[in-house]
Amino acid sequence: MKKILNTPEGYVNDMLAGIYAAHADMVRPVGDNLRCYQTAHKTPGKVAIITGGGSGHLPLFLGYVGKGILDGCAVGGVFQSPSAEEIYEITKAVDNGAGVLYLFGNYSGDILNFEMAGELADMDGIKTCILVGNDDVASAAKGSESVRRGVAGIFFMYKCAGAKADEMASLEDVKALAEKVGSRVRTMGFALSPCIIPEVGHPNFTVGEDQISIGMGIHGEPGIRVAPMLTAQEIAKEALDAILLDMPFGPSEQAAVLINGLGSTPLDELYILYNEVAKILKQRGIDVFKVWVGEFATSMEMAGASVSVLRLDDEIKALLSKPAHTPFYSNPQLED
Amino acid sequence: MKKILNTPEGYVNDMLAGIYAAHADMVRPVGDNLRCYQTAHKTPGKVAIITGGGSGHLPLFLGYVGKGILDGCAVGGVFQSPSAEEIYEITKAVDNGAGVLYLFGNYSGDILNFEMAGELADMDGIKTCILVGNDDVASAAKGSESVRRGVAGIFFMYKCAGAKADEMASLEDVKALAEKVGSRVRTMGFALSPCIIPEVGHPNFTVGEDQISIGMGIHGEPGIRVAPMLTAQEIAKEALDAILLDMPFGPSEQAAVLINGLGSTPLDELYILYNEVAKILKQRGIDVFKVWVGEFATSMEMAGASVSVLRLDDEIKALLSKPAHTPFYSNPQLED
Repeated sequence: MKKILNTPEGYVNDMLAGIYAAHADMVRPVGDNLRCYQTAHKTPGKVAIITGGGSGHLPLFLGYVGKGILDGCAVGGVFQSPSAEEIYEITKAVDNGAGVLYLFGNYSGDILNFEMAGELADMDGIKTCILVGNDDVASAAKGSESVRRGVAGIFFMYKCAGAKADEMASLEDVKALAEKVGSRVRTMGFALSPCIIPEVGHPNFTVGEDQISIGMGIHGEPGIRVAPMLTAQEIAKEALDAILLDMPFGPSEQAAVLINGLGSTPLDELYILYNEVAKILKQRGIDVFKVWVGEFATSMEMAGASVSVLRLDDEIKALLSKPAHTPFYSNPQLED
Repeated sequence: MKKILNTPEGYVNDMLAGIYAAHADMVRPVGDNLRCYQTAHKTPGKVAIITGGGSGHLPLFLGYVGKGILDGCAVGGVFQSPSAEEIYEITKAVDNGAGVLYLFGNYSGDILNFEMAGELADMDGIKTCILVGNDDVASAAKGSESVRRGVAGIFFMYKCAGAKADEMASLEDVKALAEKVGSRVRTMGFALSPCIIPEVGHPNFTVGEDQISIGMGIHGEPGIRVAPMLTAQEIAKEALDAILLDMPFGPSEQAAVLINGLGSTPLDELYILYNEVAKILKQRGIDVFKVWVGEFATSMEMAGASVSVLRLDDEIKALLSKPAHTPFYSNPQLED
């Protein structure tokens, strides 16, 4: 294992200390606990949105805390759930009096801890509700959406829910909107190499030298199959075949697309992949409203990419276009 | 070699086609030549700024073309200079009648071709001038600055020169400002692994399993030495010792810092490195005005990082803070 760090045990807290040092104007810890991460900008009366999950996925999860998007994040160890106590501490810190939406990926440890935190908050009179992202089409068959894993597509839920909360919508309305977005996003991922958890020191799995793991999860969960390496064109086709079969588009419905790098895949390759995705969407008569290409949900130095497609309506388009700004992500003003 | 592509020969043009497909509202090719890359937003009377260089470094170079920063980029093959003809075509396309600054890294092939393009433009009555970035302290000793390579620190020259041009400054003033910024930025890089040029198919060099190459260039040019792997603290110290010896800070002078990932190094590690950089700067009494952490100048999937430090004055601080927006980089409005 060759990583830029001081000690494997210090990996998460040293990273957090660096983030707070770099971006003190935008984010801060709750009290002394670096793993309780909150925005520096509170808006009285606004629904707050908290996410959380294991470290090792930057900019997921904490990178979406900032203006116009999320309010707090509970930061776990690498690939580990944050604790219920941490989520509860953040809940008290970011609540603006309008309730708190817990929005995170569909992983059992996270669900347990967010549920416990919600019970603690309830005793303080803070209303919370839970919504999970489950966009990974490769992780369970159609009809079993509730057990699908959450991956990069949660970005769209964050962005739209944050914009909706900024409109001073109620907790119920923010949740309903995020739920709608979640029901309209699908992701398919492809891994070319594993990553190394610092405290483990070696890869937890391997991908053969000339192989691609289709549908692998962001913690190395098994995918649909392992195949000989595919071309960009073949990867795009495989992703869109799965996504569009699972979620057909109606006539004249537009898409937003996210091409996400898993960590060590160069931007060059992500754009080569998008070029093929764009060709296929055009062939299928689906107009692309907006595209994001880059690293949005990684697995440290894992190589590979995922393709997410969001089926738009007018409300979602408007919310996607609203400005947002965090240390890791900026959506400029429309007039820029 | 395992990369997401169709053919090694199509790597650059397929990448460019993907970028144009994704960001047609912001950038476009000049005519049919994808490698002649220009902003979609022209401002009559504004000095235009063109950069260029080999592919394989995204977001360098083309990623800085957009609003408030650069106007065009000549895109070469992977690690190859663009042609003089391409630079000339872009020059004609982006000139707003106020002259064109050629601002790029200090590499002999690029210099030759930008010089030839300038001669062609001169015959058309378009005034051009050349300025190179040479921020890599590891590439030549103090006193031999003119032969130092340009690396990630050129980002600061782009940002400030672009903001200065936006103020409708003259070509001479934009160049003088960029020169001042260039004289105040130093970078030191560290490589942990090589990268693979698609058309070559194997790494051009190796870094031992437990080794770090200190001062290695972004094309794998030899650095100062190869050492057993260092801790984040040791890397930060080695970088800042070299940078601050070469460019001492006066009392109460502030710094801007760029922690740049070379490609496959996770953001986590870059922030761990920044945390150590911040501690050392604090010890030395240097206040940090602003920090950028992420991938700004890569070598495809090379692992490693670089530390750039910019010595600020009031003019540079103001220009750094101006908004800019490209498909790859956003500096939000100050009021955001």
